[in-house]
Formats: sequence, structure tokens, C-alpha cells
Amino acid sequence: MITPVILCGGSGTRLWPVSRRAYPKQFVRLLGEETPFQATARRVAGAPFAAPVVMTAADFRFIVGEQLAEAGIGPGAILIEPAPRNTAPAILAAALSAVASNADATLLILPSDHAVRDPAAFRATVMLGMEAAGKGRIVTFGITPDRVETGYGYLLLPRDAGAVSPLAGFIEKPDAARAAAMIAEGNCLWNAGIFLARADTIVAAFAAHAPEYLAPVQASLDGARDDLDFRRLAPAPWEGLADRSIDYAVLEKAANLDVVRYQGHWSDLGGWEAVWRESAAREDEVVAGPRCTAIDCQATLLRSDDPATEVVGIGLSDVMVVATGDAVLVADRRRSQDVRLAVTALKEKGVRQAEAFPRDHRPWGWSETLTLTDAFQVKRIVVKPGGILSLQSHRHRAEHWVVVTGTARVTIGPEVSIVQENQSVYVPQGATHRLENPGDGPMVLIEVQTGSYFGEDDIIRYEDAYARS
Amino acid sequence: MITPVILCGGSGTRLWPVSRRAYPKQFVRLLGEETPFQATARRVAGAPFAAPVVMTAADFRFIVGEQLAEAGIGPGAILIEPAPRNTAPAILAAALSAVASNADATLLILPSDHAVRDPAAFRATVMLGMEAAGKGRIVTFGITPDRVETGYGYLLLPRDAGAVSPLAGFIEKPDAARAAAMIAEGNCLWNAGIFLARADTIVAAFAAHAPEYLAPVQASLDGARDDLDFRRLAPAPWEGLADRSIDYAVLEKAANLDVVRYQGHWSDLGGWEAVWRESAAREDEVVAGPRCTAIDCQATLLRSDDPATEVVGIGLSDVMVVATGDAVLVADRRRSQDVRLAVTALKEKGVRQAEAFPRDHRPWGWSETLTLTDAFQVKRIVVKPGGILSLQSHRHRAEHWVVVTGTARVTIGPEVSIVQENQSVYVPQGATHRLENPGDGPMVLIEVQTGSYFGEDDIIRYEDAYARS
Repeated sequence: MITPVILCGGSGTRLWPVSRRAYPKQFVRLLGEETPFQATARRVAGAPFAAPVVMTAADFRFIVGEQLAEAGIGPGAILIEPAPRNTAPAILAAALSAVASNADATLLILPSDHAVRDPAAFRATVMLGMEAAGKGRIVTFGITPDRVETGYGYLLLPRDAGAVSPLAGFIEKPDAARAAAMIAEGNCLWNAGIFLARADTIVAAFAAHAPEYLAPVQASLDGARDDLDFRRLAPAPWEGLADRSIDYAVLEKAANLDVVRYQGHWSDLGGWEAVWRESAAREDEVVAGPRCTAIDCQATLLRSDDPATEVVGIGLSDVMVVATGDAVLVADRRRSQDVRLAVTALKEKGVRQAEAFPRDHRPWGWSETLTLTDAFQVKRIVVKPGGILSLQSHRHRAEHWVVVTGTARVTIGPEVSIVQENQSVYVPQGATHRLENPGDGPMVLIEVQTGSYFGEDDIIRYEDAYARS
Repeated sequence: MITPVILCGGSGTRLWPVSRRAYPKQFVRLLGEETPFQATARRVAGAPFAAPVVMTAADFRFIVGEQLAEAGIGPGAILIEPAPRNTAPAILAAALSAVASNADATLLILPSDHAVRDPAAFRATVMLGMEAAGKGRIVTFGITPDRVETGYGYLLLPRDAGAVSPLAGFIEKPDAARAAAMIAEGNCLWNAGIFLARADTIVAAFAAHAPEYLAPVQASLDGARDDLDFRRLAPAPWEGLADRSIDYAVLEKAANLDVVRYQGHWSDLGGWEAVWRESAAREDEVVAGPRCTAIDCQATLLRSDDPATEVVGIGLSDVMVVATGDAVLVADRRRSQDVRLAVTALKEKGVRQAEAFPRDHRPWGWSETLTLTDAFQVKRIVVKPGGILSLQSHRHRAEHWVVVTGTARVTIGPEVSIVQENQSVYVPQGATHRLENPGDGPMVLIEVQTGSYFGEDDIIRYEDAYARS
């Protein structure tokens, strides 16, 4: 059996405004019905793969749980990194944890935000590396380049490479001329950041090349505590670790690396140009999604992620337009990698759209501001079956709740009542209250807040089913 | 005294998505705090100008009244055209109406959707034409061209033209070469569609060149009925009139035309390029309005008319981006005139955004859908002081009202009650109900509709203060 380790602590900014720190691209429906994380988990579901270990951040833990449940995939473990420290410590934590329960464990390390069109071909390619991994090799998987690309790292193949060959070297982001030359020679592959190794091989590689990580990562694992379905690594000493990628910390120094060529289609979904490329059949093609109208455009992406927003492009060439309910990005297609500059600029402006969404995902469901003024706020609140909001009160606002779908169990002060669809209830300012969905389907209510302040920090929590402070 | 006749029945599509049939550009804040209609009315307010006569469509009558009130300008009359038939019948109706009350009336005919930066200079130029108008001339006003423009009509000046000269001819939309040649010769002006004439001169010109309009327009005037502050011309025989511009029907045939050169700044606000030009100091300049961020752009317009939407442009040249809450236009700047194609395409798709806005203006105030699903709709309703909605009922929906600003007087069945800020009330399905604002400031409420159908046609009206059926 192979245990997939899915890395999904990242917070991609290059797919803003659809991907933001609060809900990054691996969890977003970028292409089709599944998110990249769900597609990654499905790609390695079922024998010979064991249930996946997911490495993620605390903010994403409920999203990970929900998206796996939605995909019908049970996790082996969800490990929570106390702080983002890049891939080196996350992978070491997964390896140490695996060795502790199974000395012979073999791990397949996978980013969660890539697209692969043929999962069966991918799995078959992984299996090619098993024999080498069993012998203590670290097996990397490289993608056959189909264009000159200066944004990726490259893996060098030896002359007369077989299905599995010793890695001849890494080339980090070459310039266009060098990339073109390497591709012409046929001896390079894109480094997809995927590799297969025994867990003890990984631990040994750290011991040899980055020994400073071993003790603190082991200590954070030893100090981990279980929290519902999650295992939270201890913040100390994790937070003091250096932020380093596995490539930089270990792989570029290791001598026991092999490489296997993956012939199938792969994309890192590394920016809007990559998303456009995934959908366009030709280089000059217009990709216009639902609610989008292209008039005399070419090589252009038009995308509306808001069901209420129509997008029209007229006379555009090499332009990418992405609209959500609260933000619009319009960028030259060749500036795909500079979309992170938008996030930087909006953070400097102090604008919420830089990192957060109108929709706020919580363990019990989600809420969304429909309108906010100085005098009132209107929210849609959707509570999952069995979902329970914390017992709370607000200093500065009263709330009117109108149940529009399903049934709510409502606590206000000492009273508990059932509020049916098309009934309303009033929560006075200062009153302790709690909202639950006792039903089998989602419960939706419209909350009208009145008062003088509507910030999320005006919540005094008395009790919480999800262990939030 | 000069009576301004302001033509504002038009429904410009070239400034979509900010201008739509339901609320066209003359009523929209395109530049600064005043709308083009308000700025037009202010340009000709006060002696020697009498109160303006406004020619408009039934759909815009309350907007006209409100915008004049907001600008502090009392109308002389608001005449409602039963159907849009272009400028010829509208101007004839204004002239016949003026002659009936004052045989010596002089009219200044003005489009409502142009921008003029120096109203005093404009008024002084108008006064230059008074003597000629008094002698039975029709005085046109032409703009000094500052660029080659193929989208306008041109007025030809005679050689050695004085301040007021006989018009030497019309040139309709010349090609670029001819326009450049005429501008180089210095003997042409842009036709701004503004002219000054005695009302009886206009009637006589129709009698000479378009006599078929006289009797039917007079009959529609004779059959007019007063409706609150508006005068509605009779639909018959108006609706049978040919759709013709005053230029085509009369002016191009008349021999008694003079022309006066207007030296000041003018724009027809005829498209987004014109709006961009009004705001940009240089040809390569980026105009980024509030909530807009431009990164490495040039000659680009970024505009967000939605307070909740941030717009970011990266690496754009000659692109216009306009975002509202429900639509985004991205167009090459040189395709400004083709924005009407967006409206045509969206009408073909059957999309609401082609012609309507989320905000629905009514005589009593306005309402706006915050969210609409199969199971519920949430609206914000703003009622002006003294505003009264019709007494009505709905077959397919119940309504929850939460007053968030001000005080409402609410009738439900036989009961009348006062609902204060932060109180709510329930309107059962089928119950007759009415909403009023008895206060001195706007009253705002959040309406949550539940039921099976939320169309505006599910209203049975029993009584209406604004004479709507």
C-alpha cells in the first residue's frame, strides 16, 4: 500500500479574485465540478493507495473535511500545521508520523492544486517507481514539456534514460533560451513536485541534509492534540522552524534520487493563463464561461464566478477577465504571473477583497453579507444538517431572523423554540442566543442586523461545539 | 425670456452597463455629482431663461421630477411622449404648446445628455443668436472640433463667417479623410443638436418641410391629460407618427438657418471613450475611479459603479473596464461605439442586464433585489418621505418586513399600525397590504419574500396614489 500525502496548506494569490487566502485555489472549482483538492484525492483513491494524509492549515480544516466528504473519500488523517513553513517540515511531519505507525510505509507526496486529465495513466506511472522506492530511492515524477516555460523547475534526465533513471540534476527556472535548448535536446522534464519514497527514506534524507528539522518537528508531533477529526501539531517548536521547500532543504542535496517520466497531460493551474490553456483548444481561442459574452475577441478568457454577474468582452486580444461578486480582474494574458501584484496592492489599500470573500465558511455552514450600511447589515446564513452555532451574544446589535428554508431550533435567553420556514424571531441586543439546524437538509435564514456596529468581533462566545475560542 | 426645451426621451445603449433602457445615461452620474440632465437644466436655469419644458417618456417621468427637485430647479412643464418617435415630433409638440400660451415664445432646444464645462460661456454664446432668432432664423450652435471625429454630423460655415452666419450646409458623418480636410480648412463645426428659434418659426418650418406632422401632433396635444405633475400627450395619433430626427425632417431642408460657433469645451458623452476623454488629461492616461487599481496600464478606463466591487487592471492598453453590481464590460477603447452590440447580444440571450437594473425606481422611492433564489427573495425597499406604495396583495408569496431606518405606517387587511426602526411585521400570502413613510426622512426596510413565485407581475393593485394601473 502507498499512503498519499496531500499538501494543501498553500494560499495561492495568482488566481485572485477566485482564490484568496481565506479560501485558496485548491478548494475552488476552477475547472469542472471537482476542486483541485478533490480531484487530487480522487486520483489516488482506492487500492493500492491507503486513505490519504492531508497536511493543511487550521483555517482550512473544515473545508478539507467537507470536500473529502463531498467527494466520498475518507481521510486517513488530517494534520494541522500550526503555521505555514513551506513543504519541508510538512513532509517531514507526515513521514515521521507514518514511520511511527508503520515502519515500512511508502508515501506519495502530492501538491493539492494541480490538474491531471488521466488519473489511470498517472497511477500507472506512480507504480513504475515502486520498486526503486522499495530500495530506498526517492522517486520524482517529471512532466514532458509541451512548450518553453520559464516559470517551472526542470528535472534533468540522464542520456539513454529508461522508465526509471537516476536523476541527472535540477535546473531552477531557466531563461527561455536555455529552456528551449533543453527541450530540444529532449533530456528534461518539468518538476511537478510529486515524489514517491519510503517514509524512513525521507526521514533519513532529512537526517543527512536538514537534520535541524528532525527534533523540533518530532516535538511538535509528540505535542499534537486531537481536535474533533483533526490532529493539531503543537505550535512550539514548529513556529520557530525555517520556511524551506523540500527541494531546497533536501532533494537538491540528496544522491538517491530517481526520475520517472509522466507522459500524460498535467497543469499546475499556476495562474489564469494556465486555466485558460486548460479550457482552450487552440492558441487563439476565446474561453467564455457561463454568463459571459465575447464579441470579436481572441485568445481571451472571460469568466464570471458570480451567478448574478454578466460579463461582456468587445474587441479584446490576450486579455483575461475574471469577475466575482465583489471583485473584477482584467489582465493582459502575458501578465498572468503578476496577478499577485493585485493582491499586494489591495492589501496596501486595506481592502477586504485582497484576502477574504463575502462568503464566510464556518464549521456549521456558511454566511454571506448581502448588504452592509452604517445602519444595518443583511446576511444569508446557511446551516448544515446538525450544525450548531456557538451560544453567543452581541453588545452592539439586535438580530431579526427569518427562516426561508428548513427548520431552526432557536435559543434566546432561557427559551428554546422551533422556528419553521416562513416564520421569524427577534434576538434583542445583548440577549444570549444560539441557532441550530435539527433537520436533515440545509437550513437557510435571512438575518437582518440593526444597531451601531456589525463587525465579526462583536461576538461574546459562551459555548461552542467546534472548540473555537 | 428663452424657454429651454430639454429632450430626454432617449435610451442610450453605448454606455452600457451604467446606462440601460430602464435608466438611461442622461439620468446617471457619469461625471461628478450631477447627472447630464441635471447639468443641462442648471446650464439654462435663471434669467434670461424661463423654467424648462422637459420632453420625456412615461417611464422616466418620476426620474425627471426627482432629479429637477434634487437640483432645486422647478420645471415649466413635463410633457410625456406616448411613444419614442425621435426628435421631430417632440420638438414640434414643444413648439405648438409654447405658441398656444405665448405667441412670441423663443425656444432653446437642448439634448439632455451632453457635457459642457463652462455654462456661462455657453449662455453667452446662446445670447449671440437672439437677434437672428427674433428675425425668424433658426440658429444652430456648432462646436469647434479638436480632433478628427467620424461619428458626428458637421455644420459648414460660410467663408469669412462672423459671430452669426448663414449656415453653409450639413455634412453627415464624413469619413476620416474628409473630416480632416474640413477641419484643416477651419470651416466646419460639430453639430451639437442645439438650436434657438421662435416657436412660431419652428411651426412654420414644419409647415413648409414636414407638414404631415402638424395635425397629428396638434391632436395629441389637444387630447393630452394631466397626470399629477405631468402632461401626457394622447397616444393617438402620436403612435402612428414616423420616427424622424428634426435634422432630417426639417433643418436639412430649411433655408433660414444660421450658425453660431461655440468655442468652449463640449462632449456628447457618446460612449465610454468620451467619458474616459472627459477625465483624462493626456492621451495615454489611465483613469481609475474609486475602488479601482491600475497596475502598468495606459490609455485605460477602470470604473466601478458598485460600492462593493473592486476592479484591478494589469498590463492593459486602450481598454475600458466598467463594472456594476450585476455586469462587467471590458472593451477595446477603439470599439467604444460597438458597446451597443453588447446590449443586442444580451437581449438575444434574454438576459435582464441588457435593459434593466437591479434597482427599480418607482414614484414612491426604489427597491433592489439583494438575493433571489427559487425559495425566497430579499429586497431592500427605500420609501421617500410621504411615499405611499399601492394597496396590493400577492397570490404566491408572503412577506416579512424589518424596518431598519425610519418609521413605517403599515396596513394589513383592516389593521393600520406604526412600525418603528428595528421592528418587524408579517404580511401573509393573499393579505391586502400597503406601506407608507409618514416621516420626514427616507424609510428603509428589508423585505424577505417566501413562497413559490417572486415576479413583479404577482401584484394585484387595489388603489394607487400615483395613478398606475
